[in-house]
Amino acid sequence: MKRILLLGAGRSASSLISYLLENAPKENWQIRIGDIAVTHLQAMVAPLPFAEILQFDIHNAEQLAQEVSQADLVISLLPAIFHIEVARECLKQEKHLVTASYVTPAFLELHEEAKRKNLIMLMESGLDPGIDHMSAMAVIKKVQAKGGRFTSFKSYTGGLVAPESDNNPWNYKFSWNPRNVVLAGQGTAKYIENGTYKYIPYHQLFRRTEELYVEGYGHFDGYANRDSLSYREPYGLKGIPTMLRGTLRRKGYCQAWDVFVQLGLTDDTYTLEGSENMTYRSYLASFLPPASGATQSIKEQLSNYLSIEIDGEVMQKLEWLGIFTDTPVGLTAATPAQVLEKILKEKWVLEPGDKDMIVMQHLFEYELNGESHALTSSLVVIGDDEVHTAMAKTVGLPAAILAKLLLQGKIQYRGVVIPILPELYEPVLEELKQYGVDFMEQEKVLV
Amino acid sequence: MKRILLLGAGRSASSLISYLLENAPKENWQIRIGDIAVTHLQAMVAPLPFAEILQFDIHNAEQLAQEVSQADLVISLLPAIFHIEVARECLKQEKHLVTASYVTPAFLELHEEAKRKNLIMLMESGLDPGIDHMSAMAVIKKVQAKGGRFTSFKSYTGGLVAPESDNNPWNYKFSWNPRNVVLAGQGTAKYIENGTYKYIPYHQLFRRTEELYVEGYGHFDGYANRDSLSYREPYGLKGIPTMLRGTLRRKGYCQAWDVFVQLGLTDDTYTLEGSENMTYRSYLASFLPPASGATQSIKEQLSNYLSIEIDGEVMQKLEWLGIFTDTPVGLTAATPAQVLEKILKEKWVLEPGDKDMIVMQHLFEYELNGESHALTSSLVVIGDDEVHTAMAKTVGLPAAILAKLLLQGKIQYRGVVIPILPELYEPVLEELKQYGVDFMEQEKVLV
Repeated sequence: MKRILLLGAGRSASSLISYLLENAPKENWQIRIGDIAVTHLQAMVAPLPFAEILQFDIHNAEQLAQEVSQADLVISLLPAIFHIEVARECLKQEKHLVTASYVTPAFLELHEEAKRKNLIMLMESGLDPGIDHMSAMAVIKKVQAKGGRFTSFKSYTGGLVAPESDNNPWNYKFSWNPRNVVLAGQGTAKYIENGTYKYIPYHQLFRRTEELYVEGYGHFDGYANRDSLSYREPYGLKGIPTMLRGTLRRKGYCQAWDVFVQLGLTDDTYTLEGSENMTYRSYLASFLPPASGATQSIKEQLSNYLSIEIDGEVMQKLEWLGIFTDTPVGLTAATPAQVLEKILKEKWVLEPGDKDMIVMQHLFEYELNGESHALTSSLVVIGDDEVHTAMAKTVGLPAAILAKLLLQGKIQYRGVVIPILPELYEPVLEELKQYGVDFMEQEKVLV
Repeated sequence: MKRILLLGAGRSASSLISYLLENAPKENWQIRIGDIAVTHLQAMVAPLPFAEILQFDIHNAEQLAQEVSQADLVISLLPAIFHIEVARECLKQEKHLVTASYVTPAFLELHEEAKRKNLIMLMESGLDPGIDHMSAMAVIKKVQAKGGRFTSFKSYTGGLVAPESDNNPWNYKFSWNPRNVVLAGQGTAKYIENGTYKYIPYHQLFRRTEELYVEGYGHFDGYANRDSLSYREPYGLKGIPTMLRGTLRRKGYCQAWDVFVQLGLTDDTYTLEGSENMTYRSYLASFLPPASGATQSIKEQLSNYLSIEIDGEVMQKLEWLGIFTDTPVGLTAATPAQVLEKILKEKWVLEPGDKDMIVMQHLFEYELNGESHALTSSLVVIGDDEVHTAMAKTVGLPAAILAKLLLQGKIQYRGVVIPILPELYEPVLEELKQYGVDFMEQEKVLV
């Protein structure tokens, strides 16, 4: 019998939990699921002899130590900042760990000790990071085996709303942490294009988009992620002249989002004076220059300030959010970003029955036998409903499958590892196909 | 005999040093001047029996303790970050301190102990902060004594180049720390206008300027400083509907500087890949989208990207800096801001014989007996030459005069104090007139 401890049972854990519970009997697993709030799992887990839930508080170090001591493997879907504490406890008690979050410098420091203790800390095993690495590496290995030399790799991922549930002018609903959506892209985006390093400051990011097309799903806009450079080496693309990783949104979203960035509404570094007395309209007014006349409406002021057509699509998107109305903000000592998040959360809701959608597209260019090739690998995953979302499937299933492989003794690598090795990604990509996570490739010779 | 220790003898200390040396004989002062580099003072100080120079390193705690122990009063014109260490040593050894820098939260923590020990830490005693407080308070007290009620106070200061030495298209030369000029305004500007709190994100700051006029000196553009709100209370203007503090530049400067901000060239938070191999042109190219065609020049790319007229004044300013040329950057692991600083330092030099200029303007509005009044108080100071600059006079003389008053026993306040009290500012403003630092007031009734 193997004992799995899952920490974190929030919205993106649903498919991982289902997978663990389905596989537990034949794999002979005992499963404990801990989260600060677990009552939503009670009905599902209660009849199962091989599963338990527990109220878990990551700030309770004693509880963490106690739970880890009883496990053979820990999976953490907690907010990313808490993983390092879980990892240190796992290392201390010599337990394997799987997470869907980024390897941070603090994790790199654990690599040697993990190796020495014959443990694996398997990171970046979700969607992005996760499936993006695995699917990219599958293409890269295949092309390199033929002797191809890559000249360009751009990769975009977006968590969006499915076409059948897409009924708002932003063509967007929240399928993961709203706060992260509001703060997305802050800092400087760094990539390389034709051998030249490129830097995009945050306030230009949503203006510097690239248009993408996914067959059957239409057009998208992609904006660059902060760091497109650090994966060149692990991907085996060290000298590649062009490399960019980015995020996808439906066409028109970025242009409208840019209004928030230009105004300063996404700033999370200071609190607004008297936010508790603000309305959406007065909040907006705090970021506008003084009105040029007493009769100017706030829409006219905004239109003048940022050269937005008063009846155009951008203004319609803003209007739909209710941002020009006198709805009370109702938050004390809030940052601009917190107020914006509140406004968006009321509108961008995945309603009961709504389906979300994950879109990923890799665009490769490579040279082989004197010819230039363009290879596109695309993935679209539609959620089942507002609980078993495409986000939950694509974040949770790769981590779950890797956990299974690990407990089956099929993973030999040790240390802090990401799934860029064939031993890891090949069986995962294969099994994911059963769950509708299947890439479509298109290739053509460039003339 | 009183012993004064001056720490910091850089470019803005020249007038303060002259004042101390001139007044030393009749005031019976013994003066020690410490800086990491003091050889430029050798010839001047050597013949004077009452003055000494010493090589001083702020990182040498033992030397600091030793020097402070021999002084009755310490004046610090070191870079602002070092003041707190000097202050703690002064407190420990029970010595008074005068600086021209901002009261930081760390200084506020020293207030009670300083009072208890009967010491004064006299801060913000230079130009801005310093003369701005003193001259504003003089007007505020006068108007409030008549029963006037302020409705608006805007205050701008600029360190510029004098008209007779103004021979470049930016109408600007460095008269103080170039690094601070490059980083100026980063963060969010906060002010209040007609009772509404206003927030300007950095990337909008140089677009949201206000035009000012100073008689005899023409037009200027003012942009808001980060914090315009915290002086409402100390100034006795707690409920004032409009308050803004800002920085002055010659007309056209802000529009051109905005190009640097929009591109991201003022960012000091990350280093550029391979900056040692960059030229000014390739540095600029790293912040531009890829060229739309092979024949497009970098000027054309920039013009398209930011909608800058290819033959307009902004482009001429940029061209004059040499930023489109293949001049090597010659800096290793440099931030964007460090490269920009290097480019500017080569061009914005105060040449031998050049004069700088300080411009300050306070714009008050107040109500009295049912009438609305506009009162403008303006200051222009021209430097003597590139050493005895207007910057050095206005930063150094108030601190020097306050030091004199303190040693004469004429200042009774204790603790961490800024010069907003009549006992402090009245004699300083009076004596400053002898040095050409004299405000001109204009007042009219608004209809």
